Amino acid sequence: MIPYVRLPMPACILGVAVLLMLGAGAQAQTDPLSSWNDGAAKSAIVEFVRATTTQGSPTFVPPAERIATFDQDGTLWVSHPMYAQVMYCLDRVPVVVKAKPELAKVEPFKTVLSGNREAIAKLPMEDLLKILAATLTGMTVDEFQAEVQKWIESAKDPRWKRLYTELTYLPMQELLGYLRASGYKTYIVTGGGQDFVRVYSERVYGIPPEQVVGSMAGTTYGYDKDGKPILTKEPKLLLNDDNAGKPEGIHLMIGRRPVAAFGNSTGDQQMLEYTKAGDGARLAMLVLHDDAEREYAYGPAQRLPDTKVGTFTQALYDEAQKQGWPVISMKNDWKRIFAFEQ
Amino acid sequence: MIPYVRLPMPACILGVAVLLMLGAGAQAQTDPLSSWNDGAAKSAIVEFVRATTTQGSPTFVPPAERIATFDQDGTLWVSHPMYAQVMYCLDRVPVVVKAKPELAKVEPFKTVLSGNREAIAKLPMEDLLKILAATLTGMTVDEFQAEVQKWIESAKDPRWKRLYTELTYLPMQELLGYLRASGYKTYIVTGGGQDFVRVYSERVYGIPPEQVVGSMAGTTYGYDKDGKPILTKEPKLLLNDDNAGKPEGIHLMIGRRPVAAFGNSTGDQQMLEYTKAGDGARLAMLVLHDDAEREYAYGPAQRLPDTKVGTFTQALYDEAQKQGWPVISMKNDWKRIFAFEQ
Repeated sequence: MIPYVRLPMPACILGVAVLLMLGAGAQAQTDPLSSWNDGAAKSAIVEFVRATTTQGSPTFVPPAERIATFDQDGTLWVSHPMYAQVMYCLDRVPVVVKAKPELAKVEPFKTVLSGNREAIAKLPMEDLLKILAATLTGMTVDEFQAEVQKWIESAKDPRWKRLYTELTYLPMQELLGYLRASGYKTYIVTGGGQDFVRVYSERVYGIPPEQVVGSMAGTTYGYDKDGKPILTKEPKLLLNDDNAGKPEGIHLMIGRRPVAAFGNSTGDQQMLEYTKAGDGARLAMLVLHDDAEREYAYGPAQRLPDTKVGTFTQALYDEAQKQGWPVISMKNDWKRIFAFEQ
Repeated sequence: MIPYVRLPMPACILGVAVLLMLGAGAQAQTDPLSSWNDGAAKSAIVEFVRATTTQGSPTFVPPAERIATFDQDGTLWVSHPMYAQVMYCLDRVPVVVKAKPELAKVEPFKTVLSGNREAIAKLPMEDLLKILAATLTGMTVDEFQAEVQKWIESAKDPRWKRLYTELTYLPMQELLGYLRASGYKTYIVTGGGQDFVRVYSERVYGIPPEQVVGSMAGTTYGYDKDGKPILTKEPKLLLNDDNAGKPEGIHLMIGRRPVAAFGNSTGDQQMLEYTKAGDGARLAMLVLHDDAEREYAYGPAQRLPDTKVGTFTQALYDEAQKQGWPVISMKNDWKRIFAFEQ
């Protein structure tokens, strides 16, 4: 048996030499961003990678500092009409009520159980937080992971009738792969629950759990009835990883400023500002949902319908123009949106 | 110029083949743990690595799951007579008082300024926390990093008259390198401040900032007078990364259970329990400070003097025996303790 070994440097150099001899021609033929149309957005990405990864470039970034952060909802996958994690929480309400039958007569659980979508959509934030607390805390970390795993492998989006995990954007998956192939460490930085996204991030995006930064709740260490150590999820918010919470979460979890950041809503603005405030070449981009036919259209109120799920205000659009943050038009910049499209 | 590239799989496989042909003989000659005496501790490490990294082994661990966590103070470097970070905080008191002269007459600052070591050593925890809050918070993250950097490159340990960073244990540095060469991702999991340790962890241990888990305080995102984004360190404790806080911090920051964990005090017990509670081969080890001549001797009260800095109780020793956690005797298991020793 050959034990797993990291390649020492000389072998790596030999490997590169072999690669250059055998595969350079074929390599040059393949466009790592083949689902992107040629245009300003694609050029900005390619130019940024060239500027930060070419030895001798004045804006070269050492591999250890190549950090790229991605919002998830609306940036890496579909978030309309409602965030997948909220759908999970709503789906879990019957289970919670079964364990505590007295909740059936109490709001907001009563409304959720009624199945009245319009009424559910109108629930105020305060009620939504009660549902989140009831469905995301109180169990062990292992139990939670198992529940999310089961759900994410079966629950389907109402429009496409496909698993939520099939609704990731192919051009963004290509971008993740392209950055990683260029030595970047890719992170998800989401307003969603850190523990929730970690369940599928490696399989779906190639991003391991330790590279997921999200809204974080505390856990309590203890022992089960057999004396086995357990971690229980508590309704104690440590960090709301949205808006100003995104740079705060990045500092907490990574401890380095990103070199590139990607978002799609006002909740991502501070992450983009923080990224761009570093020295040298930096890339900050926003995905604009302007394709009602292939996905959804919402955004700057003067041009597209307003939304509370992934709000992209006119002010954010103006800021992007002013700061030079390229805006990605799903309609014009993306040849294909989903891998399942023909 | 050749841009930095990650090796695609075929090149890596070729690289391994080349390595096996050219270097296998030389490789086998070098003991990666040459500062360790042969004995139970060293054997436990080598056997664990073999069991978890040999393809086909029933306890094989896939590379992505190879997580090893290390306490810092007393496990990776000297923590007596006092933790380096506390020395930093005490050294910073004059600067804090200069900015706020009214503190000079207030305890505990008055005692610290007096320079009376005995009185300083007797300050109660409550006073120590006041000093920590005054010296570790209120500044921007960048300012803090610059201050720690300056201090760590100049402050010296009173006994050895050497930089604190020279007082890391050579056998543990070898262990970090050996585990990394075996595909393990090494993390520091310290009761010390996460932001403090991150300043030097990469240079001193080869552990990047994103792999440092420590006691965590919140930051607040804002803007300086020129409108540039800043993060300010707040006196708001998010997690005390000691005792039960260690597995909680590991879950928060890594999201995976370690396969191996190393500590030296009661504050590490829960981390070791949590690690061992996973399936398959797991390694949990404790460093025992039993070498008064070459370092210090403190530990289980029945055998060694008690201490409040890195407490190793008899109960912990008994637990280690019961659970099969190998105890590393600095006196018997380590040939050399420091790299500077001849």
